[in-house]
Amino acid sequence: MADESADDAGAGMDLVAEARRNWIESGLGEVDAMVSATSLARAHQIVLGRINQALTPLSLTFSRYEALALLSFTRNGSMAMARMGERLQVHPTSVTSTIDRLERDELVERTPHPDDRRATLATLTKAGRAKHVEATKALEAIRWGMGEMDDARLQELNADLANVRGSAGDNVSGSLRTASRGQT
Amino acid sequence: MADESADDAGAGMDLVAEARRNWIESGLGEVDAMVSATSLARAHQIVLGRINQALTPLSLTFSRYEALALLSFTRNGSMAMARMGERLQVHPTSVTSTIDRLERDELVERTPHPDDRRATLATLTKAGRAKHVEATKALEAIRWGMGEMDDARLQELNADLANVRGSAGDNVSGSLRTASRGQT
Repeated sequence: MADESADDAGAGMDLVAEARRNWIESGLGEVDAMVSATSLARAHQIVLGRINQALTPLSLTFSRYEALALLSFTRNGSMAMARMGERLQVHPTSVTSTIDRLERDELVERTPHPDDRRATLATLTKAGRAKHVEATKALEAIRWGMGEMDDARLQELNADLANVRGSAGDNVSGSLRTASRGQT
Repeated sequence: MADESADDAGAGMDLVAEARRNWIESGLGEVDAMVSATSLARAHQIVLGRINQALTPLSLTFSRYEALALLSFTRNGSMAMARMGERLQVHPTSVTSTIDRLERDELVERTPHPDDRRATLATLTKAGRAKHVEATKALEAIRWGMGEMDDARLQELNADLANVRGSAGDNVSGSLRTASRGQT
């Protein structure tokens, strides 16, 4: 009986190469783009799976970790929720549900915005700040799910991913510069 | 008021470069790995968003498309559901819910496996086969969400993503070979 767990399932066959072969044999176009999209989905599944596995013992997910990280880099540990959506590049309803959960876990508090009564601030609690530090250490320890790729390979990957992001209108000027020169 | 849609939100600032700066200023480690994981998540969000946008008018998602594609490349348009989970690298419960929906839309039928009464086959219907062809054309037309990246850049990206996949134990021998030599 074959192992059906997601990580081991494909060990016997290069599934992306197999998709490529099927594509070429069927005379379908845009084979490199198809392979990129498929590989990107698989790589994301692997890396996010590892990250979430490292965060589960801390009762966090990557989305909630990202929200904590964003707040922890502000001056007062505080940001308007609408602005958080822009910075995390997610829909406002996702921010709401992420903050709901973080508030329930007492890692974040909602407060009215002092200068704009229509807006709500999310503010890191002391426990939220400590949780962010703890989770960052846990992610560092697994090298953010990137396996054994060395820094040179990671920088290459980052430059390529910056191209994908740039193709969607993301500002990637800083990423392309740092990716080609290494750390600044 | 800033635009909060996921695709345009970051246009004013390179958010990944900003994360990199915060990391370095805070003296945190594994900055390239952090950037890779963050960029991978964002690139995946962009590409999957475009793909799902192209598939929505056809009442499909990428997961359901992948299941149709997998079946369409078999000899009889048919595969055991457990085997589909292995090939799609997803959990058996995901295969079940994907096939449930495809069956409801009359694109796939469940039948008992002729040689193994514990197993269930998913089989493409005629409508399912036509839907696969139609959806493949729709994805070709948007170059699988890869924007304006040319084939050389896509092949570079594919080699880098094969490294990520390989780090999780995926067999990537075919991908590394074809990525470095272009199409075979």
